[in-house]
Amino acid sequence: MFRAPVTAGELLQVVRGEVGATRASLGERTGMSRMAVEQRLSILVENGLVVADGLEQSTGGRPPAQFRFNSEGGVVVAVDIGISAVRVALADLAGDLLMDVSGSISIEDGPEVVLGLVEKYADELIAKRPRPVELWGMGIGVPGPVEFEQGRVVAPPFMPGWDRYPIRDWATQRFGCPTVVDKDANIMALGEFHSSWSHLRHILFVKAGTGVGCGIITDGRIYRGANGAAGDLGHIEIADGDEIADGEAPTCRCGNVGCVEAMAGGWALVRDLRNKGIEVTTAGDVARMARAGDPGVLAAIRKAGRILGHALADAVNFFNPSVLVIGGAIGQAHGELLAGVREVVYRRSLTLATSDLQIVPSALAERAGVVGAAHLIGEQVMEAGAVDARLAASTKM
Amino acid sequence: MFRAPVTAGELLQVVRGEVGATRASLGERTGMSRMAVEQRLSILVENGLVVADGLEQSTGGRPPAQFRFNSEGGVVVAVDIGISAVRVALADLAGDLLMDVSGSISIEDGPEVVLGLVEKYADELIAKRPRPVELWGMGIGVPGPVEFEQGRVVAPPFMPGWDRYPIRDWATQRFGCPTVVDKDANIMALGEFHSSWSHLRHILFVKAGTGVGCGIITDGRIYRGANGAAGDLGHIEIADGDEIADGEAPTCRCGNVGCVEAMAGGWALVRDLRNKGIEVTTAGDVARMARAGDPGVLAAIRKAGRILGHALADAVNFFNPSVLVIGGAIGQAHGELLAGVREVVYRRSLTLATSDLQIVPSALAERAGVVGAAHLIGEQVMEAGAVDARLAASTKM
Repeated sequence: MFRAPVTAGELLQVVRGEVGATRASLGERTGMSRMAVEQRLSILVENGLVVADGLEQSTGGRPPAQFRFNSEGGVVVAVDIGISAVRVALADLAGDLLMDVSGSISIEDGPEVVLGLVEKYADELIAKRPRPVELWGMGIGVPGPVEFEQGRVVAPPFMPGWDRYPIRDWATQRFGCPTVVDKDANIMALGEFHSSWSHLRHILFVKAGTGVGCGIITDGRIYRGANGAAGDLGHIEIADGDEIADGEAPTCRCGNVGCVEAMAGGWALVRDLRNKGIEVTTAGDVARMARAGDPGVLAAIRKAGRILGHALADAVNFFNPSVLVIGGAIGQAHGELLAGVREVVYRRSLTLATSDLQIVPSALAERAGVVGAAHLIGEQVMEAGAVDARLAASTKM
Repeated sequence: MFRAPVTAGELLQVVRGEVGATRASLGERTGMSRMAVEQRLSILVENGLVVADGLEQSTGGRPPAQFRFNSEGGVVVAVDIGISAVRVALADLAGDLLMDVSGSISIEDGPEVVLGLVEKYADELIAKRPRPVELWGMGIGVPGPVEFEQGRVVAPPFMPGWDRYPIRDWATQRFGCPTVVDKDANIMALGEFHSSWSHLRHILFVKAGTGVGCGIITDGRIYRGANGAAGDLGHIEIADGDEIADGEAPTCRCGNVGCVEAMAGGWALVRDLRNKGIEVTTAGDVARMARAGDPGVLAAIRKAGRILGHALADAVNFFNPSVLVIGGAIGQAHGELLAGVREVVYRRSLTLATSDLQIVPSALAERAGVVGAAHLIGEQVMEAGAVDARLAASTKM
């Protein structure tokens, strides 16, 4: 913590955190000699991570150069794999999107087919990158539970053929860069945090799609819990009462009865609407009919919002977030879901926990995943140790 | 972060984190000159915060002195105010208890009476301290919701006369030291963490007493949420079904129906047992009859455990802790509550979230609060800035 001297990667963190950094201010901040600062700065400049910029008022002579982080010094690829669509984006080292592309898939086609399309899109985007800079890393979101350390999904309910498929190893091998794999709700939460809520400490993001997922951000980081299982809102038990009739609670695909997902998930909406003779097959169909204003579908979504609201009321009591962001295909389709959630959470949660609570729709909508994935991998590859390791391997060191 | 030179308070953090620190190793760790290290060390030694200790193998000449943090260089007072008892302890600067004393109170007697007894106990303990060192701080736990920044309880349900009473200001004025006030479940969680679970990152502590409270520890710190309301397990809504009959859900003192506390809290147990003709008045009475083996009381506690288990199953899905610690007067009275919790959580939570989950009784029992309060204030007064401020005010600087 108090160790000196400072490495190039550590100096980069100081430059990133300071506006108008000069050789002198960096020396003062780090306690390093002018010569040591100069040596590390020149490594960072040669490798395109820092640029000299602007002029500073000086007491005389040549004005001192100012240095800033050059987020254009590299690119990362961000991938959001969904049940029926995939989106791939190119972003700079600050996690800002440069361009993106999306296409339809069926997750059931399995990893070879889906990752084949991801590879094709990524290659196209890398070829089109605005400057001839290197690929620094890849962030991938998937619609299922992830063993974060291993970078693979485990027993995913909607992803036949994907169980324990080594997604991270595939990407590392194919693209030769550090890769991080996470569940979609986590990266979407991180995306919303960076785009709209980075001034707040506690964010909950709910993905209401085919399933019901939740991502938790505390102090700017994804909260994962002991086994990476944190945020499983879909299998919270819903009370009989206001929203569901006695004996109505259906069996969930997890084997329990009364889970929120078995009543408010996209797959449950499909089941209920079909039972009423409304012809839908996927959560996407439900979303489309909601946008078209079908009254039966809207009523079902409102009810799903209320059920989700009961689970979220508990989550609000327990976690006391500043903001609750509602996204996912069903969440984005129509305001009815959000209205149902608001109705129940504001009625049911403790006053102290809701006094400053905002409940809002996703601002990034279908781009939340790639924005979050870009930030997740961007943060990882920009850590001091990762930068130093990369610079050590580089011929420019 | 990379700033040099290092203050005495910052050097103290380095000494605390290093076994067998020498002048040379401290110089290396901090990048400071030998003279600067010497100057700051002598301030710390003069103020009793660091002692020279042991001998080190040397290449020749006088072996270099080793320095270590002297936790006996000061004391803190830790207070746990309950509904019907108060416990006051004296601890060293590492949060280790030196001695403690407890007595009966009625929280309804209000702050003047209760804090009067706290003052008496604290004065007695300070007078008996083993060395003539100064009082560095005071940590106080209370059985109600706390506005942490202001150091006072807000709208506490079982504490008539305490609403917005300035507990922290009272202590600061009376004892002339930094004081921190927190809800009891938070300090108890911190106590259990430090005594048994400091190797784990995510801990839930449940206080099953008159009410139902919960403290959350993540990465060694109390998780408070946006408004300090985090961990409100008592007002999670319980589903009709296994444990409660249809229509049985009673109204809670919060105004909602079906809250866990209205069915599993000590006050609810008192209500239900009295309805069955069993003569009890307080949660303490229920605990005593449980310890005596009264079958009606044990059956009621088992049922309360199952109901608590449903709320905790949701909390486990959401927060994914490594360990769930059950304490409080009812929790400690008999294993039936723990058994009921285990039964439902292992059945109802997701397999991934329970695969490594331990559900255990409180190891510290009635001392969990004072141990946690001592650590909470100890951590605060030992922060580098707090130490520097104190040293600057001291005549020995």
